[in-house]
Amino acid sequence: MEIDVERLKEIVGEKNVRDNIADLYVYGSDSSVHEANPSVVVRPETIEEVQEIVRYANAELIPVIARGAGSGASGHTVPIDGGIVMDLKRINRILAIRPRDILCKVEPGVVWDDLNRALQPYGLWFPSAPESGRIATIGGAIANNGSGVRAIKYGTMRDYVLGMKVVLANGDLVTLGADTRAQASGYQLDRLIVGSEGTLGIIVEATLLLRHLPKFRAMGMAKFNKLEDAGETISDIVASEVTPSLLELVDDIAITALNKTLNMNLPQVEAIVVYECDGRLKEAVNYDMETIKEVCEKHNAFGIEMGSDAKEMERIYSGRKKLFAALSRYREGFVCTSLADDMAVPSSKIAECARKIHEIGERNHVVMNAYGHCGIGLLHTKILMEATRKEQWENARRAVEEVYDYVRSVGGTTSGEHGIAISKAPSWKKEKADSLQMMKAIKMALDPNNILNPHKLMDAPDDWVTATKLRYPVEL
Amino acid sequence: MEIDVERLKEIVGEKNVRDNIADLYVYGSDSSVHEANPSVVVRPETIEEVQEIVRYANAELIPVIARGAGSGASGHTVPIDGGIVMDLKRINRILAIRPRDILCKVEPGVVWDDLNRALQPYGLWFPSAPESGRIATIGGAIANNGSGVRAIKYGTMRDYVLGMKVVLANGDLVTLGADTRAQASGYQLDRLIVGSEGTLGIIVEATLLLRHLPKFRAMGMAKFNKLEDAGETISDIVASEVTPSLLELVDDIAITALNKTLNMNLPQVEAIVVYECDGRLKEAVNYDMETIKEVCEKHNAFGIEMGSDAKEMERIYSGRKKLFAALSRYREGFVCTSLADDMAVPSSKIAECARKIHEIGERNHVVMNAYGHCGIGLLHTKILMEATRKEQWENARRAVEEVYDYVRSVGGTTSGEHGIAISKAPSWKKEKADSLQMMKAIKMALDPNNILNPHKLMDAPDDWVTATKLRYPVEL
Repeated sequence: MEIDVERLKEIVGEKNVRDNIADLYVYGSDSSVHEANPSVVVRPETIEEVQEIVRYANAELIPVIARGAGSGASGHTVPIDGGIVMDLKRINRILAIRPRDILCKVEPGVVWDDLNRALQPYGLWFPSAPESGRIATIGGAIANNGSGVRAIKYGTMRDYVLGMKVVLANGDLVTLGADTRAQASGYQLDRLIVGSEGTLGIIVEATLLLRHLPKFRAMGMAKFNKLEDAGETISDIVASEVTPSLLELVDDIAITALNKTLNMNLPQVEAIVVYECDGRLKEAVNYDMETIKEVCEKHNAFGIEMGSDAKEMERIYSGRKKLFAALSRYREGFVCTSLADDMAVPSSKIAECARKIHEIGERNHVVMNAYGHCGIGLLHTKILMEATRKEQWENARRAVEEVYDYVRSVGGTTSGEHGIAISKAPSWKKEKADSLQMMKAIKMALDPNNILNPHKLMDAPDDWVTATKLRYPVEL
Repeated sequence: MEIDVERLKEIVGEKNVRDNIADLYVYGSDSSVHEANPSVVVRPETIEEVQEIVRYANAELIPVIARGAGSGASGHTVPIDGGIVMDLKRINRILAIRPRDILCKVEPGVVWDDLNRALQPYGLWFPSAPESGRIATIGGAIANNGSGVRAIKYGTMRDYVLGMKVVLANGDLVTLGADTRAQASGYQLDRLIVGSEGTLGIIVEATLLLRHLPKFRAMGMAKFNKLEDAGETISDIVASEVTPSLLELVDDIAITALNKTLNMNLPQVEAIVVYECDGRLKEAVNYDMETIKEVCEKHNAFGIEMGSDAKEMERIYSGRKKLFAALSRYREGFVCTSLADDMAVPSSKIAECARKIHEIGERNHVVMNAYGHCGIGLLHTKILMEATRKEQWENARRAVEEVYDYVRSVGGTTSGEHGIAISKAPSWKKEKADSLQMMKAIKMALDPNNILNPHKLMDAPDDWVTATKLRYPVEL
């Protein structure tokens, strides 16, 4: 593979092509454990530039890896085999906010929190929000079907995309979907692009459904001496008539990390359940809050605190958002890795899954914790370990495999919101064994030269540990 | 194409293969204007039988047209070129209802209303409901991304499918999705199947998300002397903070039809807006109802009636469900045809679109009315005409074209819930011009012999009037 850097400079301008070692290194990793440098980085500013780059790459059989903020946790934008990393952060205009149609049109580089700031004056918002909303781009979130803490009430990215513009592998620009909520117009190609992780096309514009900012919000926190009680509480809330706008599990390891790093002063119990309700009538919000409280009490919760003080809610919420960082400091010399980090299980299995995660971690001599948006069946975990020790990676490999064996056995799925890419591909291939051929056929039909984010998903290596160099100084 | 009927009888048993002219005639039409007899009808009872039939058909290059209730309005199950119509109504078990996971598993032949009857004892329901819920099958509704009157609050079929089992063109059985609400596990192949109208695979099982039956419901009806006022009211309600569970427009033609046929005794005004709110707290429902009432009054509504009497709500609701039948008797000698019958527009365009429909009908000497689930931007219309007169079909062709030209010009889409199939394909091909090639590539990749419901969507004839024989005695 030889890349004509001068040709790329003609397309996007000299300053938007980077091939010095420092830049390549930065673009060689994301929030995953993987690392592999691109051959060159380009930063287009228009759709036409994206098309031209892709046309060039397709003719020369050069991989093109679309990249937003690089906050992906599974290696989505790590260019296993080099090629062009296309940074889309400069294509970042909010093209239209149409309150009467309850929609907006945005370019892929728009940052999640920036969009919400722009919507606020209209009393609107783009609900949910990943932990990484401060940096994550809308394009990346669509490519990944991202969601966040409020998905339990407001759904995930796939519920909000009404349409999009996509550059295909041959450089063609296609418009998918429409500016309407009702759509039954044949193949839902936009829904196919959601979650395709940059392997079928490059999203260059999206039409998104919006919601009204809720008038009232209240938050509650319940403590549990047993992880199982907390898990069963969450299952029962999901199975109840109430739909909270947030329903999170925080386990003892996360509690320790939050207290240690952020001085949050949380009680050192086995688990905390955090919940939030919102709505346009205070009485209705309170009624829902009381119902949830009753469910908590049924499962031996204690020290239940509820309130609607904005500052206190923000404190808890921002603690939640810093959990990933906090976990990194759980123990001296440990790093926090995103591995098996967002499986989803049927909502009745929360308690069982949370306990399994702890057990599997212990059995394999790594620290694994359980937290996350359990209201939609999604459990986060991180594997905390000494990343410089070879045997820790072997332990992690086993732990990951065991967790996913369990997840599949109960009808769960490998990823709830972070996607598959490299790290999760081995287990995911087992889960999707009977449809891999179907995916490959679609990939081949739309990208016959396999230039768009190759070696991911069904084409990822069979062992994630050795798929790329690891980001940590370790000899495997 | 020669079909070995004896081979089919070996697979499904003699009594489940029909090739007498009476049966072929029945299966040669659905709820559309089209007609074309199949070569043979088979009625499998198991997934294995479906697989074996498809394998046989694929080897012999025989079209296979999957069929549920035949309530499709655009010719989905009309076998343009003959072949095997596969009636899936016998594969109709409710396999599991899992209240704690808020999901159920059903076979494709399960009828919508039957499912809701089975869910009721659990306090659960499968929301929304097409006008045809009494007969429509879940499999058909998925293949079509169906919805119904409550989509404004509860979404459409694509929001409820968590997973499915599908028989592909080569007879392979694939399992898509998972038993979880959170899913970000690569290509969303289940979402691709939703809306693919039987052209990519045959749905043989579905896992569906459920909702809790709301505790309280209230309904309101507002009258308007001007259609525009009613349309603007709907747009404003959609843009408000309230989310009603039903928001329907009924125009003067529909009012006349309902009064004439069902003696509903509705006031003969230009338009009525019907709305419903539901929830778990009566006060919140009433608060929402009042907000909507205020919006109605702002737009000169009069004679607003609101109530939560179950009988009265049922009377209005069942009138709505019989509207299609009622319109058929609007004028002696007229038939009611499903043409341009479910376009969707951005929600600010309801009034404009409703007026356009009336104008276009008048200009082309057919009767066209505007009603439907306008809360999600969806306008229904029917073309009422003398179906035995050739020039009426030419008028209808022109009217359909003009309506869709308008719909596309405002960012709308050809179908909101009924699908494309044959009748809507010509306009839809214009709407999707730049992605037709992408659809064809996917179709070719998954069904290289083009046996699954051929001649539909991108492969449909360019003129719907002459695409098949019409169901009416008319020489074209």
